[in-house]
Amino acid sequence: MTYPTALGASTKDSITLLGRDLAGEVMGEVGFGELAFWLATQRRPTPGETRVFEAVLAALADHGFTPTAIVTRLTHLSAPDSVQGALAAGLLGGGSRFLGVTEDCGRFLHAHLPGSLPVDDDGWDAVALQVVRSQREAKRFVPGLGHHLHKDGDPRTPRLFAIAEEERVTGPHLRLFAAIGRVHPEVLGKRLPLNGAGVCGAALADLGLPLELLRGFALLARTAGLIGQLAEELRSPVADQIFRGVERDGVPVEPSPYRL
Amino acid sequence: MTYPTALGASTKDSITLLGRDLAGEVMGEVGFGELAFWLATQRRPTPGETRVFEAVLAALADHGFTPTAIVTRLTHLSAPDSVQGALAAGLLGGGSRFLGVTEDCGRFLHAHLPGSLPVDDDGWDAVALQVVRSQREAKRFVPGLGHHLHKDGDPRTPRLFAIAEEERVTGPHLRLFAAIGRVHPEVLGKRLPLNGAGVCGAALADLGLPLELLRGFALLARTAGLIGQLAEELRSPVADQIFRGVERDGVPVEPSPYRL
Amino acid sequence: MTYPTALGASTKDSITLLGRDLAGEVMGEVGFGELAFWLATQRRPTPGETRVFEAVLAALADHGFTPTAIVTRLTHLSAPDSVQGALAAGLLGGGSRFLGVTEDCGRFLHAHLPGSLPVDDDGWDAVALQVVRSQREAKRFVPGLGHHLHKDGDPRTPRLFAIAEEERVTGPHLRLFAAIGRVHPEVLGKRLPLNGAGVCGAALADLGLPLELLRGFALLARTAGLIGQLAEELRSPVADQIFRGVERDGVPVEPSPYRL
Amino acid sequence: MTYPTALGASTKDSITLLGRDLAGEVMGEVGFGELAFWLATQRRPTPGETRVFEAVLAALADHGFTPTAIVTRLTHLSAPDSVQGALAAGLLGGGSRFLGVTEDCGRFLHAHLPGSLPVDDDGWDAVALQVVRSQREAKRFVPGLGHHLHKDGDPRTPRLFAIAEEERVTGPHLRLFAAIGRVHPEVLGKRLPLNGAGVCGAALADLGLPLELLRGFALLARTAGLIGQLAEELRSPVADQIFRGVERDGVPVEPSPYRL
Repeated sequence: MTYPTALGASTKDSITLLGRDLAGEVMGEVGFGELAFWLATQRRPTPGETRVFEAVLAALADHGFTPTAIVTRLTHLSAPDSVQGALAAGLLGGGSRFLGVTEDCGRFLHAHLPGSLPVDDDGWDAVALQVVRSQREAKRFVPGLGHHLHKDGDPRTPRLFAIAEEERVTGPHLRLFAAIGRVHPEVLGKRLPLNGAGVCGAALADLGLPLELLRGFALLARTAGLIGQLAEELRSPVADQIFRGVERDGVPVEPSPYRL
Repeated sequence: MTYPTALGASTKDSITLLGRDLAGEVMGEVGFGELAFWLATQRRPTPGETRVFEAVLAALADHGFTPTAIVTRLTHLSAPDSVQGALAAGLLGGGSRFLGVTEDCGRFLHAHLPGSLPVDDDGWDAVALQVVRSQREAKRFVPGLGHHLHKDGDPRTPRLFAIAEEERVTGPHLRLFAAIGRVHPEVLGKRLPLNGAGVCGAALADLGLPLELLRGFALLARTAGLIGQLAEELRSPVADQIFRGVERDGVPVEPSPYRL
Repeated sequence: MTYPTALGASTKDSITLLGRDLAGEVMGEVGFGELAFWLATQRRPTPGETRVFEAVLAALADHGFTPTAIVTRLTHLSAPDSVQGALAAGLLGGGSRFLGVTEDCGRFLHAHLPGSLPVDDDGWDAVALQVVRSQREAKRFVPGLGHHLHKDGDPRTPRLFAIAEEERVTGPHLRLFAAIGRVHPEVLGKRLPLNGAGVCGAALADLGLPLELLRGFALLARTAGLIGQLAEELRSPVADQIFRGVERDGVPVEPSPYRL
Repeated sequence: MTYPTALGASTKDSITLLGRDLAGEVMGEVGFGELAFWLATQRRPTPGETRVFEAVLAALADHGFTPTAIVTRLTHLSAPDSVQGALAAGLLGGGSRFLGVTEDCGRFLHAHLPGSLPVDDDGWDAVALQVVRSQREAKRFVPGLGHHLHKDGDPRTPRLFAIAEEERVTGPHLRLFAAIGRVHPEVLGKRLPLNGAGVCGAALADLGLPLELLRGFALLARTAGLIGQLAEELRSPVADQIFRGVERDGVPVEPSPYRL
């Protein structure tokens, strides 16, 4: 039995990564965002692709006191001996709800690309209109549309469209997402913002990254954010207050027997 | 009760990160390695610091079929619905043994810096000699010294020293580590390589990163590596063969009763 | 804001759990399986329910060198300082594939119970026939049917049916599952075993446990199994050999560029 | 290469666990606490040992809104698709601080057992006096002594001593712990309670369980508790309120640059 891999490999005198000499060709030569892209696709991104990719990672790195951030801080409070446990616990919140929109939106857009791609905005608008209508009829949401706070627009969205345009990496996923942004009021009767998590999913898909791992890139971004949360917790701790507050507000009630 | 944070914050119309406008000042402007450093220290690194930091992350990102990589692949095999679970499981192997040398070495060097720093190599050699001797007398290893495979030298070590030198960020931790590399044969009677994990710890400490989180940066690097492992597993799966191989080689034996 | 809970609560002089005095009414009075059931449903199970529940936990506790067991051992090898990390990593493999059949089967049976329950085996056979046929037409598997190894019958299945019968807790989920076992050859043209994971799901549903948490009970059982794996690993380690074997059989190959 | 194991094993027609026929000799015959003990030690406990062991598990199963419980609820809020992730995240808080006392106390007592065991309370008191004095001199706490809430006595402690006595499994660890409870005021000048986590560690050590895994048994108990937390969260959710409360009380502050 053999296990092929193109990732890290070592001999007594050499270390390679992705077929390159790690010390001579990667260290000091390849940025970390670029390397993460390269590891995931086994192809080196262009500088423009790297810039868009890193803009996505920046957009997703930290959103303040989210459940994942609170979890990392509480886990550190409870088990300060294990940095890996605190980070892993935080990442486990990166599931379908809070970090899932990025992946859901990328997959949704990909699944709805027409066989023959439109050549102009009018063409994309027609596709988008059909997409929004069929979701509406099926009583399903369009992933990436709407935001509980940024009701008049998520500032990350136009910025990421602009960066992708500057770097000439706008592809069909971003075009369809933009078209959804233009046409959905016609179907839904109100204007919703294209949210930042959604545009990130569209951009990651346009970068050619694997759909099954779009959530993985959100988790990579969040790992950096959670290290920031831990660093701040070490210097300016709040986890004990959070815990004590919840404990104090706990109220004992009678058991409520359950039977399926 | 209030919980202060300098990380992510949102209002209806704005999103900030580290006090900057996320869309306008961070996205498209700040690389991912640079951002991770900034999040951890709340200060923006110089380009030279970023290059050294990203070289460290590259050195630690992936080492092939390590326990963490195998764990991520096996967890994905067993629970393919949860990318976050597969990544978190892999990171949980980032403890004292396989990823711990980086943190151990950074902490060790920091703990042994003299109150007044030497001004030349001779001075550092004298400090290093004392450090190696006292470890020897206490029958303790010097973290970062020795490698089970790269016995004649770990190629990452001279490269990272050189990059730090180019960027003029060499500080006392790297200097002490280099001196240990020069003088230890005099005490131990044999020449051991300064390993890559160790020099990474020295460099991270010289960059001024928090000692309590040095392992965290190894975990950040490894997150990118584990996404690479997952991406390769999706296209060229080996986890089922690994599992079946171990299962096949399992041999039932009689229980062996234990009592403390 | 208050957070009601019927679980653990403390005052300076008392500790209660589920509304009972922990020291006087729970410790020494309630077995661990019984307590786990009580915690999950907030109702105390009968001795018969407890016996069936504990038989299920025994059936699911350990299956030798599964991915979860290998993961726990490898994580302990890599991070021996964190028992919680090794157990958590193993549990993260408890997803849709290896531990998921229990939950899938319980949910499937529940979703296919008729509004009016049959009163005899002939009635159940008619229901089962329809269920198996509709799955067949939809080209979907029946959860709990078939086993890669125990092709002539899984020894756990008749045993669990018998224990449930002895304790008079057989309910509609077990009855439908048994009927599927009787009638499926008529539809599928071959006889498949009712597997142990499936019958466990049926039994847990008949015990009235929450469907959303059936996987949770498999995880509880597995936690005991993984502690057994760790205990054996401490005394008779194999993880390093497993790791070295995989590492040795790794073969570097050229990167294979991917683009969505 | 072969991997010996005395745990689960299967052939086409049989399944064994710990050398016993799983279906015939374990399912329906062995309680879950008993099985967990057996898996960890490969010896079947006596009924008395099982009762003490299950009393310990009851004592540690759930303590209301602890960090681990909050973490499990928040992780479920954020990633409701992954029960295994929510449980694993909660267990990751089972480290040195909140669940660590059990293990710390068991290890501490074991390390301080005299070579020749005393035959009466006076003898144990003399040992305990020396132990408390030497900790005092070294300015170290005695693990298991003191409780932030139950200042006049932890109700679990006398109860577990009594159960162990009833079952005649009191051994040197419990005896030394009891003696510490009697003599420490003479050294410390005040009376502190022997806490429940500590007495659990003493009892587990007297049961002959592996010291390296005492924390593992606390985690097993807690797994049952966390399933209870999840079940309650599903029916009576509070995680979203907890999250929103913390988010609302977050206050943006200026970054505070850090340098080692």
